[in-house]
Amino acid sequence: MEEVCDRLRQWIAQQGQVVGPEFLRVDSFLNHRIDPRFVDLAGEGIARAFAGQGITCVLTAEAAGNVIAYEVARKLGVCALYAKKGAAATMAGILRRTIESPTKGVPVELCLSREYLGPKDRVLIVDDFLYRGTTSAALAEMVQEAAATLVGFAFVIEKRFGKGREILARFGVPIVSLVTITRLDPKTGGIEFAEE
Amino acid sequence: MEEVCDRLRQWIAQQGQVVGPEFLRVDSFLNHRIDPRFVDLAGEGIARAFAGQGITCVLTAEAAGNVIAYEVARKLGVCALYAKKGAAATMAGILRRTIESPTKGVPVELCLSREYLGPKDRVLIVDDFLYRGTTSAALAEMVQEAAATLVGFAFVIEKRFGKGREILARFGVPIVSLVTITRLDPKTGGIEFAEE
Repeated sequence: MEEVCDRLRQWIAQQGQVVGPEFLRVDSFLNHRIDPRFVDLAGEGIARAFAGQGITCVLTAEAAGNVIAYEVARKLGVCALYAKKGAAATMAGILRRTIESPTKGVPVELCLSREYLGPKDRVLIVDDFLYRGTTSAALAEMVQEAAATLVGFAFVIEKRFGKGREILARFGVPIVSLVTITRLDPKTGGIEFAEE
Repeated sequence: MEEVCDRLRQWIAQQGQVVGPEFLRVDSFLNHRIDPRFVDLAGEGIARAFAGQGITCVLTAEAAGNVIAYEVARKLGVCALYAKKGAAATMAGILRRTIESPTKGVPVELCLSREYLGPKDRVLIVDDFLYRGTTSAALAEMVQEAAATLVGFAFVIEKRFGKGREILARFGVPIVSLVTITRLDPKTGGIEFAEE
């Protein structure tokens, strides 16, 4: 597990681009162009952390978390569920939460069909980044509203200064981040990682 | 290959829900809840069809096509590239095309960072559905604008009556659909497949 995290940290240190004190650009391997080797490694780390816990559903919010959630689901042998931005014409019986988009600063409505989440489900919420925790908290509330069991949260990269971990603490479940960043320096391009 | 397509067709016949003469709901396995077994099978079919053709990039438009494109890219050993809806604050040097969303009927701007697509690239455009062909045609134009080589289009499901194939014909490359639907009957819920 530690080896997986080390490799991810090296990857981020080499290819991540600091574009502001709060923004790390990972477009070359995780967010715009997707490198399956990175996603596979991150999926492996998260799947190992939650193996044997009876997860039945890996939940994320589209679109940034989709491939990570998919890869974790694939490795755990369960389905992934994507909360959609805005209800499509073909969706039925919907759970909704409105949040502010973390990257675009506009209101976004997250929608989940009730038919895919119920009391028998044991849910792992997965996303690429943990920053303010807004999106994951909204997903966790939807899990509660569906009377499903929330087992934990898992993130590839935690931006520690966003205090998302504090927001998610109220759900009382494990929060796993594969890589934790404590500081981004746009002047030097430096990325400071937490000591693991 | 024929066996892969047969299995996908059976899956769609069993779990797809006809919600209108032009709409097939695949939310239980492909679009909202994602079944990795279906995606793996579809990815296998597309990757086999384009194996050995020197593909360097699998391109799609987020979010519906993301996991299929990822799975195809994973199997071909290359990166996937997702045209994003609207430019994020962290994107640089952007190719843009505005299209009408096929499911929501609103204008959507597709954005691609120029740095990830260039003259050396051999691109396969992948999506879940071929319907009107609008999204794929916009992506193909961006490939041309980037002076990359378009190798082909691949879709999991073609809705033949959308005439998307005719729209894409002008690009002069192979168009592969794993499953082709000729008619949806909302009264009976029937799905008619093309004879393969």
